[in-house]
Amino acid sequence: MAIKTSKQYIEDLKELSPSVFIRGQKIDNVWKDPRLQSTLNLVGMNHDTAFDPELKDIAVVHEPLVDEPVKRFQHRIQRTMDDSIQKVKLVREVTQQRICGWCLSNTLCILWAATWETDQKHDTSYHERFVEYAKYLMKNDYDCFWCMMDPKGDRSKSFSAQETKPGLRIIKKDSKGITVRGVKVSTSYACCSREIMAVPCKALTEDDKDFAVSFGIPVDTKGVHFIVREAPQRENPENDMECPMGTAIGMVEGTTIFDDVFIPWDRVFLCQEWDMAERFPYFFANIHRQSKCSCLAGHTDLACGIAALVADVNGIPFKGHIRDKITRLMMEAETAHGCALGAAVDGHMHPSGIYIPSTSIANSGLNYIKNLAGEQVQLLHDIAGGIIVTMPTQDDYNNPELKKWLDQYLCGSDKYTTEERLRVLHLVQEVAASKFTGNFLGWAINAAGSPITGEILTREHYDLQKRIGIAKQWAGI
Amino acid sequence: MAIKTSKQYIEDLKELSPSVFIRGQKIDNVWKDPRLQSTLNLVGMNHDTAFDPELKDIAVVHEPLVDEPVKRFQHRIQRTMDDSIQKVKLVREVTQQRICGWCLSNTLCILWAATWETDQKHDTSYHERFVEYAKYLMKNDYDCFWCMMDPKGDRSKSFSAQETKPGLRIIKKDSKGITVRGVKVSTSYACCSREIMAVPCKALTEDDKDFAVSFGIPVDTKGVHFIVREAPQRENPENDMECPMGTAIGMVEGTTIFDDVFIPWDRVFLCQEWDMAERFPYFFANIHRQSKCSCLAGHTDLACGIAALVADVNGIPFKGHIRDKITRLMMEAETAHGCALGAAVDGHMHPSGIYIPSTSIANSGLNYIKNLAGEQVQLLHDIAGGIIVTMPTQDDYNNPELKKWLDQYLCGSDKYTTEERLRVLHLVQEVAASKFTGNFLGWAINAAGSPITGEILTREHYDLQKRIGIAKQWAGI
Amino acid sequence: MAIKTSKQYIEDLKELSPSVFIRGQKIDNVWKDPRLQSTLNLVGMNHDTAFDPELKDIAVVHEPLVDEPVKRFQHRIQRTMDDSIQKVKLVREVTQQRICGWCLSNTLCILWAATWETDQKHDTSYHERFVEYAKYLMKNDYDCFWCMMDPKGDRSKSFSAQETKPGLRIIKKDSKGITVRGVKVSTSYACCSREIMAVPCKALTEDDKDFAVSFGIPVDTKGVHFIVREAPQRENPENDMECPMGTAIGMVEGTTIFDDVFIPWDRVFLCQEWDMAERFPYFFANIHRQSKCSCLAGHTDLACGIAALVADVNGIPFKGHIRDKITRLMMEAETAHGCALGAAVDGHMHPSGIYIPSTSIANSGLNYIKNLAGEQVQLLHDIAGGIIVTMPTQDDYNNPELKKWLDQYLCGSDKYTTEERLRVLHLVQEVAASKFTGNFLGWAINAAGSPITGEILTREHYDLQKRIGIAKQWAGI
Amino acid sequence: MAIKTSKQYIEDLKELSPSVFIRGQKIDNVWKDPRLQSTLNLVGMNHDTAFDPELKDIAVVHEPLVDEPVKRFQHRIQRTMDDSIQKVKLVREVTQQRICGWCLSNTLCILWAATWETDQKHDTSYHERFVEYAKYLMKNDYDCFWCMMDPKGDRSKSFSAQETKPGLRIIKKDSKGITVRGVKVSTSYACCSREIMAVPCKALTEDDKDFAVSFGIPVDTKGVHFIVREAPQRENPENDMECPMGTAIGMVEGTTIFDDVFIPWDRVFLCQEWDMAERFPYFFANIHRQSKCSCLAGHTDLACGIAALVADVNGIPFKGHIRDKITRLMMEAETAHGCALGAAVDGHMHPSGIYIPSTSIANSGLNYIKNLAGEQVQLLHDIAGGIIVTMPTQDDYNNPELKKWLDQYLCGSDKYTTEERLRVLHLVQEVAASKFTGNFLGWAINAAGSPITGEILTREHYDLQKRIGIAKQWAGI
Repeated sequence: MAIKTSKQYIEDLKELSPSVFIRGQKIDNVWKDPRLQSTLNLVGMNHDTAFDPELKDIAVVHEPLVDEPVKRFQHRIQRTMDDSIQKVKLVREVTQQRICGWCLSNTLCILWAATWETDQKHDTSYHERFVEYAKYLMKNDYDCFWCMMDPKGDRSKSFSAQETKPGLRIIKKDSKGITVRGVKVSTSYACCSREIMAVPCKALTEDDKDFAVSFGIPVDTKGVHFIVREAPQRENPENDMECPMGTAIGMVEGTTIFDDVFIPWDRVFLCQEWDMAERFPYFFANIHRQSKCSCLAGHTDLACGIAALVADVNGIPFKGHIRDKITRLMMEAETAHGCALGAAVDGHMHPSGIYIPSTSIANSGLNYIKNLAGEQVQLLHDIAGGIIVTMPTQDDYNNPELKKWLDQYLCGSDKYTTEERLRVLHLVQEVAASKFTGNFLGWAINAAGSPITGEILTREHYDLQKRIGIAKQWAGI
Repeated sequence: MAIKTSKQYIEDLKELSPSVFIRGQKIDNVWKDPRLQSTLNLVGMNHDTAFDPELKDIAVVHEPLVDEPVKRFQHRIQRTMDDSIQKVKLVREVTQQRICGWCLSNTLCILWAATWETDQKHDTSYHERFVEYAKYLMKNDYDCFWCMMDPKGDRSKSFSAQETKPGLRIIKKDSKGITVRGVKVSTSYACCSREIMAVPCKALTEDDKDFAVSFGIPVDTKGVHFIVREAPQRENPENDMECPMGTAIGMVEGTTIFDDVFIPWDRVFLCQEWDMAERFPYFFANIHRQSKCSCLAGHTDLACGIAALVADVNGIPFKGHIRDKITRLMMEAETAHGCALGAAVDGHMHPSGIYIPSTSIANSGLNYIKNLAGEQVQLLHDIAGGIIVTMPTQDDYNNPELKKWLDQYLCGSDKYTTEERLRVLHLVQEVAASKFTGNFLGWAINAAGSPITGEILTREHYDLQKRIGIAKQWAGI
Repeated sequence: MAIKTSKQYIEDLKELSPSVFIRGQKIDNVWKDPRLQSTLNLVGMNHDTAFDPELKDIAVVHEPLVDEPVKRFQHRIQRTMDDSIQKVKLVREVTQQRICGWCLSNTLCILWAATWETDQKHDTSYHERFVEYAKYLMKNDYDCFWCMMDPKGDRSKSFSAQETKPGLRIIKKDSKGITVRGVKVSTSYACCSREIMAVPCKALTEDDKDFAVSFGIPVDTKGVHFIVREAPQRENPENDMECPMGTAIGMVEGTTIFDDVFIPWDRVFLCQEWDMAERFPYFFANIHRQSKCSCLAGHTDLACGIAALVADVNGIPFKGHIRDKITRLMMEAETAHGCALGAAVDGHMHPSGIYIPSTSIANSGLNYIKNLAGEQVQLLHDIAGGIIVTMPTQDDYNNPELKKWLDQYLCGSDKYTTEERLRVLHLVQEVAASKFTGNFLGWAINAAGSPITGEILTREHYDLQKRIGIAKQWAGI
Repeated sequence: MAIKTSKQYIEDLKELSPSVFIRGQKIDNVWKDPRLQSTLNLVGMNHDTAFDPELKDIAVVHEPLVDEPVKRFQHRIQRTMDDSIQKVKLVREVTQQRICGWCLSNTLCILWAATWETDQKHDTSYHERFVEYAKYLMKNDYDCFWCMMDPKGDRSKSFSAQETKPGLRIIKKDSKGITVRGVKVSTSYACCSREIMAVPCKALTEDDKDFAVSFGIPVDTKGVHFIVREAPQRENPENDMECPMGTAIGMVEGTTIFDDVFIPWDRVFLCQEWDMAERFPYFFANIHRQSKCSCLAGHTDLACGIAALVADVNGIPFKGHIRDKITRLMMEAETAHGCALGAAVDGHMHPSGIYIPSTSIANSGLNYIKNLAGEQVQLLHDIAGGIIVTMPTQDDYNNPELKKWLDQYLCGSDKYTTEERLRVLHLVQEVAASKFTGNFLGWAINAAGSPITGEILTREHYDLQKRIGIAKQWAGI
């Protein structure tokens, strides 16, 4: 089977030499830079899940396109309600453990449907090209990251109406391919993947047709540069209490520069068909938001477990307001997960063969849980106590003179040592009171689209006229 | 096919002569009393849905138990995920139109599973009896109402520890059957159904074993008396603007007295097996709360349509805060419906052959939407304006001298006549500012269990230990 | 002292013969009609408060304008921070007991300031006229009701642009006075007061100058007709359990028709000065919304007491979720009351001599508590249980045959008889599940202005530029 | 006048040599350590406010105790409603600009009232001693920090029942004074103040009488050691865009060790009078929570300004959902501030001469705004966009090769340069997505007491029986 272990995968990645900047400096030996390790680690875990005895039955699936097993998360073409359901279940299972499972199969499905529609309308042959590309990814077990978000410049003006032409656009087109220039922002994982998959992020008018572009290319293609924001790190790398999640699975966030990058035609999936640009965010808005809905259920599970643990460590019994607050988290996770599954049930087949979950349920459920992200962080503060922002650091604890005092006075429930309590408090601190908290909130609130987009999409897909009709009947008019 | 039209069904009902009190007076000619008509009307609609071209495909289903088509809502034994899904879809479809579809099939499923478990544990034969009874209901297309809620007296004491013995209990047992005495409260539909189905409402201890009783009998069984609370009525019956829903589909609520009622053994489904009493509310808490979750999605759709209509009638464009508030209602409906569907997906088979939806998703989703009921009523006030509580009555409007003034001054958008506007305002008044509002809120907040029960059930079914384990791993302890 | 007892006041009212319609019929003997009694009762209570030993110190105040004691609620010209504070305290004290204290002194203050400004700008003499009128009201201890809300017709068009000319307007002006025609809606108390005080409800343009009109006249002025919506009544007037508040203090809501009513100049307080129209709702938006904020604190106290009582009657101990929900109500009442007091502190003197509470605090605090009205009703359902919508009526309880059963089975805590429990459940029903509930919600949500108006006003009065300046400093730009 | 400028004050501080540990290392030259500079800076600002032309009228007040002007924030004995009001206004004014104004005068008032009560009950003379100490602080313009929070160890057990004796306690008592041992946690400002003021944090039983201790001593008293957690810093100190607030005004949080510290009697304010311990948190719960309520209004103002600025920088017009969300922040700030002022109005005189604001309003208002802290951070993410967690660092921007791209593509509204936009985005990042966010949330959620304490206090001070009485009257029982 083609699925690579983490070790193989990361070994293979080293074939590539992407151009990467971190904090203003070009990185010489990309794959050795410690600031990329947690991302590589997370990417690797996505491979190891395929070999996890508990998860492999759901994490690996036979994909007819290549007649081989593939990782469901990364490569499954979702063709049935069951595909949609299984994906949702896998998302929650993984995200409650490690925040992100990198659900790239969503991107494949979005491209699948959007290229198919473009071909129908424009008599082009993007779909076939894309299918070949998808097979290539599957056969090699290659991952790609998602270059979707264009900078918008002045939001009251279109791309082309601005002198700066923010966004990624085609600047040249010839018999061999196209050349693109510009920037994509909020490109998570960025250089730590194998391939770049670029798509438009919004509806476009004809004037903006050069911004209607989609393609897939290797991350070390000439002219591509990554400005990478490293995951939150420990201030003192030797302190293993601090920042456990960030250092293990914190993923880089990035800005991706396309400095006149050439794309051969066989990797171009949209080229100036401006009227089709909105289809990419549309398919994103149901397929990917359904995943995000379940993803945030998983984050809520994680917060729930941390909350229950810190309450126990603090010696607070599971009753009264503590129990109520933890129950609230449970119910929030179940509600979001319920919606993600419900979106699968209420889906429909796209004529291209992709199964599309319900846009209105996916967006409603996602907005529900998204809008609770701040409150969830707040609950962690509330349950853990003020000490998460005032406590001594691990360096203090490492000083034997201070340790003596801290061991005695910062103890909690006698089920745990003081060191164990400090470890748990540091974990809460990371999730609720650190730079990592910012990422945690960002993944909830703006990743997969800001809250207002969810409102707009639901409004567009809810059959209000039907309900007005019912009201008219009751009013007798 | 055995399914009866509304006409047939109501004709058949007249064979019975239940003992009914309304406002303290015994009713002589039950089926002619105008205060029962809206309930009969609603009951009839449940039959007509089986003949509705748009709904019959989902509303009617072939039931293997009797090898005949049955009404899904009333008689389907839910055996598969698809059964669970179709039921949810039908619920929302119907409740957005007429508040309640009387989902009795849930009760059949609850009895099915609970009697099966009782037999397994106690070596009894309740399940077989119940199956025969279920077939009898199906073959005759008979409905039954649900006698579940016992009065609790002093909630800090058990039934048997109270002198008054609140609740329904067995007072005699012999070779022919049992005799029961007591009261069940909150018995919606009550006398307007064919049969009574009684079950315990809570876990019991051995001291309370006489309260562990379940059975099914005709509504006119000797000793059964109904104290019926009529649906909200018009003050002036000739005014068709006022109270359109209550007069058409308002259902009676009731208190059912069992004055030493004899039940033959073939209709007894639980008799003193006190340890099994909690199974009835348990199965209720997943099967029926899933339905209620979708039911409240339907109510939210109804509120949404009314809100959009009254805004239009008032001449307020669909933008800004009005649009946002209506969008909120849409998203609430979609979220609740998503959870009801999600509960179906995350269900499991009970060994008795019943498909059980997820308890934690059903309860979380239901609590979500239940807790918004007050706010939804508030939004209707907000959108419609203060006039819904201050406007002239239809009697005023019928006075030509006043009508002249009202037609001119109470007009709204010129898309509607003043009369049409008044009709719509009266509809909002009924839902948000009338006695009917109380019922509307009651069906949301306490029907199918109070909010706290949903919290408790979710807490019991959520795997918190697993999440604490994940947190411990991250904390490194 | 001029303050009249309830008896004197109602006796005096009988001097008048207003033209009143109820349910389409003109009322012959107005003051004997049972449907007006609860309003008269409430009006009377406002007088008796002046003689209440516990409240008179705050309820009665020496008014320099007439050098006599007046009722603070009805006649105080609020000139100091202390006036503003005392009013707020009195409001909560009264509204927690009987919903409404009829805070007419607010209207006097609004007119005081608005007429003063009009004179300053237009060199008119409305203020002096108004002061004379105010003295007349004070000296005779006359109440007036507030005719503010014009019907708007099609909200996207101005009054004058609509053929129907919704709203109250001047149709004639001569040396003796003006003649007005039109309708005012949502006129609470209406005919049960002594005088009508009419004011504009929104900003006007020059085209709408005829709608810029304010005046004060007796309720039985020729051409004035009231269409009165009676307060919620008992279905069976002999049942004293049902509808206790509505029958005692439910106030009429009304629509007031001005069929070419002549107003002599000495009672005209605005006449076509269209640019001043917005000052009336502006002063309303601080002075009256401050009162409403405290008023809803009082309603919340009332709900809080009812909630605690029904929990006790039901035998539910004051702990866990019940205690938390009641605590929530307490905190809501305190927060709203705090804001009403805070608005007093952050007020300023108007050059006319009126003390103006903070617009932004009054509106923010009011919107806070207003938006909780639906949830508060919901909490009452939650705490009391489903029985409030399903229980037997008092007529059932009066039937000895049924009473026997009900006494035994509907008992609650043994601290109360069953009859006492039923009385409390009926009280909850009235507030949370009856026609009265609609009024209760209406007084919260739309009385004193809809929620969106509170948002707009706060936005206008909050110094956002100052805070943007601070942000710029921190950003270093 | 005795008030010192920031320069004088910090110069004076250098007379002291407190024992300070940061990250496990003892600091040699305390006052030169860069990690303490932002705290010193903030402390200095509190002095400079006394010389600020716009604020000095409210910030400086004549204090009769010493017959000299003092800083209202630090040294005013609050004796009147006006004191309470002015303090609240000053708090909001300062906190909206720089997060914290160090309202020490609250601590003086708490000690004032608590020592007075102790003397009344125990015939001691703590109050007189305390008054002398207060004069000493005022005359020298000395600040002190607040050592209140004891570690609790296992919360289900009392201090004395635990082997570790968590908390600060008296271990010796002789004719000259007492000796204390233990730890206080969450000691903000810590070593950067002049004096330590220690008080109990909870009610105690007789067994815990040794934990009933209060005193005031210099920060460099023998045996006192500070474990200091530095304020959030820039990763690259030369980058002025990053972390502007933390580096300017971020205050240290600390743990304070008392390694057998001797306190002479004239500085002891409570010694084993265990029954009085609860008075300290009680006075804290009204005086200090009132300040905190206004403090969080100020933080909300700050968030509001930042939100409006970033929306503008992003080129998003002030309308629709953006305007609504910013309006929400405005209303939250006004509501909280309203409550803080309202608490002043509803206060009462303590017999010791201190004015006590309303406990129930202060706690209700504080809980209201406290519970919105997470949502406010969320709104900043929502309004600013995902870019705050994915954008390039200032180091990237400083690289000319990258700057060229970033200047072009990360531009926003043309009212701002790209650099200005990046500065604003960094400010949002600091408040909503950085380590500083943790502190920001901590100051809201747990500083001045966790949310549950606010609920408990309100419950204790709300007159529920009165409202139950009103409900009983309405129910007629």
